[in-house]
Amino acid sequence: MHRRLAGGLSRTLCSSVGKRLFSTRTPLAKHKLCMIPGPIEFHEDVLAAMSTPATSHVDPDFLPVFGEAIEMTREVVRTDKGQPFLVAGSGTLGWDMMSNVLEEGDSTLMVNTGYFGDRFAESLETYGANVHHVKASIGSRPSTKDIEAALVEHKGYKMVAITHVDTSTGVLNDIQALAQVIRQRSPESLIVVDGVCAVGSEELAFDDWGIDIVITASQKGLGVPPGLSVVVASQRALDVFKKRSSRIRNYYGNWNKWLPVMEAYEARSALYFATPPVQLLYALNVSLKQILANGPTGLSERIDAHRKASGQVKAAVQGLGLKLVPTSLEGAANGMTAVYTPPSIKTPDLIEAMAKKGVQIAGGLPIKAEPYFRIGHMGISVVEPERKHIQHVIESLHSSLNELNYRS
Amino acid sequence: MHRRLAGGLSRTLCSSVGKRLFSTRTPLAKHKLCMIPGPIEFHEDVLAAMSTPATSHVDPDFLPVFGEAIEMTREVVRTDKGQPFLVAGSGTLGWDMMSNVLEEGDSTLMVNTGYFGDRFAESLETYGANVHHVKASIGSRPSTKDIEAALVEHKGYKMVAITHVDTSTGVLNDIQALAQVIRQRSPESLIVVDGVCAVGSEELAFDDWGIDIVITASQKGLGVPPGLSVVVASQRALDVFKKRSSRIRNYYGNWNKWLPVMEAYEARSALYFATPPVQLLYALNVSLKQILANGPTGLSERIDAHRKASGQVKAAVQGLGLKLVPTSLEGAANGMTAVYTPPSIKTPDLIEAMAKKGVQIAGGLPIKAEPYFRIGHMGISVVEPERKHIQHVIESLHSSLNELNYRS
Repeated sequence: MHRRLAGGLSRTLCSSVGKRLFSTRTPLAKHKLCMIPGPIEFHEDVLAAMSTPATSHVDPDFLPVFGEAIEMTREVVRTDKGQPFLVAGSGTLGWDMMSNVLEEGDSTLMVNTGYFGDRFAESLETYGANVHHVKASIGSRPSTKDIEAALVEHKGYKMVAITHVDTSTGVLNDIQALAQVIRQRSPESLIVVDGVCAVGSEELAFDDWGIDIVITASQKGLGVPPGLSVVVASQRALDVFKKRSSRIRNYYGNWNKWLPVMEAYEARSALYFATPPVQLLYALNVSLKQILANGPTGLSERIDAHRKASGQVKAAVQGLGLKLVPTSLEGAANGMTAVYTPPSIKTPDLIEAMAKKGVQIAGGLPIKAEPYFRIGHMGISVVEPERKHIQHVIESLHSSLNELNYRS
Repeated sequence: MHRRLAGGLSRTLCSSVGKRLFSTRTPLAKHKLCMIPGPIEFHEDVLAAMSTPATSHVDPDFLPVFGEAIEMTREVVRTDKGQPFLVAGSGTLGWDMMSNVLEEGDSTLMVNTGYFGDRFAESLETYGANVHHVKASIGSRPSTKDIEAALVEHKGYKMVAITHVDTSTGVLNDIQALAQVIRQRSPESLIVVDGVCAVGSEELAFDDWGIDIVITASQKGLGVPPGLSVVVASQRALDVFKKRSSRIRNYYGNWNKWLPVMEAYEARSALYFATPPVQLLYALNVSLKQILANGPTGLSERIDAHRKASGQVKAAVQGLGLKLVPTSLEGAANGMTAVYTPPSIKTPDLIEAMAKKGVQIAGGLPIKAEPYFRIGHMGISVVEPERKHIQHVIESLHSSLNELNYRS
């Protein structure tokens, strides 16, 4: 049952298996389909890697597993020289990890599209930042003109922070367009993207768009159980960090500690700062190999698959007469859908009815909005349509609404 | 293959299975025995729980899994009202987690027995503490008299920090005796124990000994793959935290954020701050049920088993004419053994020779000592002697030394 995964598993071999990397092992036991915006459904091979027997974090067999994961993380966000940090923790830890580029009193512009924008800002304030928000009403997003105006009104932002997809509202920011404006109007500002609900499911071109930091987590588009915090920093961000004049503000998030560790593992040697989460890294290695199995084309096709599945879900939901939380389709995430619950139905009743049909969806988060629910559609649920996850979630939504006497 | 573990698995059922909780499933695939001081060898059922299919962190099935893990953590450290925090991260994160009880300039006494004492202090200094060290020479430990003298010389330590077992030297501190002296001489000082290489393998009585904070990690005595940071705080520590007058110093380690989350899950409901590492918590639930299967007696027998296995390893090593790093047996850990490498042999050669025989041991850490190596003996390797892990490590050490032409 417990196969020791070959650390050096050839990428070529992996690709030659074809686009669909279905496991040859026993399929997943029957369980509730997890169709929330993360944790998402995990591939059989990823789960098998989670139960890799005890392995030393300095075992020669483990070094390439970690090293390859670092290299492949770079490929997924499309950077040549960005520095990945793969650290045990939740996505939330990413905010602490990147906050060390800030010093007391540094001003930050927050492009805020929901609950996670508020939370990101709260974290920045913990580290002494002065945060100015550009907000739009629930479901919409600030325009590039709004950002331009904010950058003209106040000069010298150390950082512009943007949530790529705010998991609370399902609103998608146009990072490419925003980054272009920021680079023009405030070239010194670091561009920091919270990609927790976006990396692996939304288009992202770290180098081409001039991003400085992306943070994400394992349990969404990367397709790995929760417990890994992923941060990628540009050389510019690393320079800003190295030039800071005041004391570093936390210990576990200190890039000076992690940088030599990442460099060591990438060079297939080991260095200790904190024990890496060995099993999660085996799982990440497997999942990243699947994601990158067909190179840049495969990655691009993967993003397209998310667009397509998202279109299906949104069309089905709208076909049922339900209203999306995002006010426009181009401003809506491709990895999740946020939908207002019909006034005649209570959200917990809808979630329970769907759970009884074997599908787990999510309720809303505490934002100033009418009651709503959320459906996740990322990873194997969209790139392996033969699993029929999307079909299953749409059908069970339909029948659950009927059971609850919904009339559109 | 992937069994959904019943969240509400009855403790009574678990106990009735008897002391040895051997899995009925396929045994572990052949792999190198991981006999380092963490990660340790993991039980089949713990590894199976690691591959629990995707489960929402707010799924009703998951709530008791997390809730029970919180309750059982309390039992393992022997506290009635201490507050556990179970957070995605490495053991190192525990230092940041507990540092929020400190404010700029607070003085701390560090009972330092090696590399991890230095590192603990470095973390405290990141948070603005003034750290005074009481050190002993490599392999020995400060006496209670040394600590008493330090507490008389300088009054008003906000905290006394002690590494229970320093994983670099294998030195065991006598927490009970030290805590007694600290309580007498400096009753206001918080007593903070780094129990990363001790919880589950060394005796610890949080309430009876008057401990304020214990930090540990999943991959040692708790028998779960790395990725979980475990902190337990006394009500007194929580009060100190709540009464702090300055800003909280980090975001991810903010107890104000975690406390309601832990309380919610313990009450079998859910609250969000950061996505919990669902699979690791399933695994922790399984492992803690094994550890506590026979209640306090079982826990006490477990510590005895570690003493016994440690005695075997240390006697075997000394029988081979090798010298222990700890200068006394009562000051040596029961979960690991640190041994000087014979001058005629290079440590990497010894590690490699043992790896060829299927046993992974660890080298030394960067401390000012002659070359040495480390063997871990915790968890299933000692409480399930029928696995013959201890025998295997001793035999392969013996034959590896012979191969390398060692003469005692």
